[in-house]
Amino acid sequence: MKMSERIAGIAGMIGSLDEAAMAAARARQDRLTKPQGSLGRLEELSIRLAGIQGRYLPQIKHKAIITMAGDHGVVNQGVTLYPQEVTAQMVQNFLHGGAGINVIARQVGARVIVVDMGVACGLEADAHIISRQVAPGTQDMSLGPAMTLEQAAASVETGIDIVATEVARGLDIVATGEMGIGNTTAASAICAVIGNSAVDGVTGRGTGIGDKQLEHKKEVINKALAVNRPDPGEPLEVLAKVGGFEIGGLAGVMLAAGAYRVPVVVDGFISGAAALIATSLAPKLKDFLIAGHVSVEPGHRFTLDYLGLEPLLDLGMRLGEGTGAALGIILAETSARILSEMSTFTEAGVSEKDKTVS
Amino acid sequence: MKMSERIAGIAGMIGSLDEAAMAAARARQDRLTKPQGSLGRLEELSIRLAGIQGRYLPQIKHKAIITMAGDHGVVNQGVTLYPQEVTAQMVQNFLHGGAGINVIARQVGARVIVVDMGVACGLEADAHIISRQVAPGTQDMSLGPAMTLEQAAASVETGIDIVATEVARGLDIVATGEMGIGNTTAASAICAVIGNSAVDGVTGRGTGIGDKQLEHKKEVINKALAVNRPDPGEPLEVLAKVGGFEIGGLAGVMLAAGAYRVPVVVDGFISGAAALIATSLAPKLKDFLIAGHVSVEPGHRFTLDYLGLEPLLDLGMRLGEGTGAALGIILAETSARILSEMSTFTEAGVSEKDKTVS
Repeated sequence: MKMSERIAGIAGMIGSLDEAAMAAARARQDRLTKPQGSLGRLEELSIRLAGIQGRYLPQIKHKAIITMAGDHGVVNQGVTLYPQEVTAQMVQNFLHGGAGINVIARQVGARVIVVDMGVACGLEADAHIISRQVAPGTQDMSLGPAMTLEQAAASVETGIDIVATEVARGLDIVATGEMGIGNTTAASAICAVIGNSAVDGVTGRGTGIGDKQLEHKKEVINKALAVNRPDPGEPLEVLAKVGGFEIGGLAGVMLAAGAYRVPVVVDGFISGAAALIATSLAPKLKDFLIAGHVSVEPGHRFTLDYLGLEPLLDLGMRLGEGTGAALGIILAETSARILSEMSTFTEAGVSEKDKTVS
Repeated sequence: MKMSERIAGIAGMIGSLDEAAMAAARARQDRLTKPQGSLGRLEELSIRLAGIQGRYLPQIKHKAIITMAGDHGVVNQGVTLYPQEVTAQMVQNFLHGGAGINVIARQVGARVIVVDMGVACGLEADAHIISRQVAPGTQDMSLGPAMTLEQAAASVETGIDIVATEVARGLDIVATGEMGIGNTTAASAICAVIGNSAVDGVTGRGTGIGDKQLEHKKEVINKALAVNRPDPGEPLEVLAKVGGFEIGGLAGVMLAAGAYRVPVVVDGFISGAAALIATSLAPKLKDFLIAGHVSVEPGHRFTLDYLGLEPLLDLGMRLGEGTGAALGIILAETSARILSEMSTFTEAGVSEKDKTVS
């Protein structure tokens, strides 16, 4: 299968971390008024931000959370606890500022970009939503492909478009978020295929289903994989066969952020599945991804291990929307402020450690 | 040994969590537009804040970090990497806004209260420091008691005074912080006594000493315990024999915060040692303590386990000053905002889960 030229072009733009900026950032960290290494992962994070942004004093001022919504035909199989109309209702909630992501975004000082990638029904007109429907929900993946290859490419290209617009507005960091009843089912399927894992190990309770429904959900995913037989080496095909429009959109967000050297804070399991697609398309993207948190979905820890990402937070969260990623933005900002604003030993007139002692 | 009347009075004021406020907070959490429990520890934290503050919508607006500084006579034994004058130099750095705690406090929107509990030398006059010297540094605990029992009581009472002043200014949450070259040595000694642990298991590298100096540090602590033989059942005696003025001050801060129903975010190992003293004086205080993070000092994890506290963050930090606790304030604020600001299912017109499915 041929990747679209647009997607291939963006993937090809993703470069390497700026080693010179990282070396300068590391040198400054070691001159700040603290024992070397005593801010632990905040120090490492600031250095990686320097490498991504290509400047030794990274800036985290313009922040966006891109929350993409889409529906899933597989909900017909009874894999979820909430009815499909909740996707649209929660999108309205995002637009009215009453959802978890809105509350955290206000604290973080981030704008929330809400994108309709394929909500099935019932979405009221609203000036604040970005309407980029690929289709009104995917097809039931347990019966055949969730979408066409053209739709898969269109969803990824939409994510690229959204980031291009946001970069033009000013963007120092972006967090990924999503809403879509049924989308842990798609994420588990993607994770099983790309991570070459048994469905059992990467499928969890989503919004909180019981034991019986969990077993059924696993059966539905296994059926979808048997019916579609996606090729793990063809990420767009995986997206088309067992993915979702919001997942493809987020993969596009990540690819474009990497191309524009904007750090991406990845949220939970669904965003992780998007990262599996995106990094399969462009392996160098991994260096531009920051894991905001690890959720309680078992497939998320598996995904992070597969991607080689260590989460910043582990708070037992499983809401999605970008909530865990938004908290990660806070820590990224802390790390960048530390690097920029702390005094060096010389500036503060503080004695350095006794180098004769060991 | 008799506890001072002032300390006993404050310890006696510490009440229980407000069960009615917690029940109302829990009920509201379960009506917010998210799957029940999906914000994990943020939900639990908001409910505990409700119980501490005694209102079902806790508020985290007025925030203070109380950073107490003191010197330690035991540095004469060569247990540290930095010279003693660094305590005073870092206090100046706090006052000029160039230290790690200043940077994070600005992001958090918290005021930093810097208290001289017993800096040995070299502290320049500054209008922004609270000068409450108990003495210019403790005595060398490897040769005898670090301070008298009267000094131990005075240090705790000073912490109580400081909180009383801050409560009058408005205080919704307080974080503990400290600075004192040599104070991980004191903290390890306290931890070994109150936690009934071998010194070896609760002693770490502090600011980053090497293997040889670490062995020496353990020998010095063992000597201090052999010389002083502190009674684990007498927390003020433990403080006097192997503690520090800033540690006693922070124990007082915690006791008074508990008495005034102000949540306390406990920082790293030194603050943890202060919590061991404070909770030994008033066991009910535990409910008012929030562990901001777990540091890389091995004694800190031990201390948190002993206190039954689960840290919010694990970022490999070991700076002190209150830096880990200040980050904990951010998450406490997030949790309180979630509880207050998120819409309920009814308010947002979102369908609840299908209760017929299991």
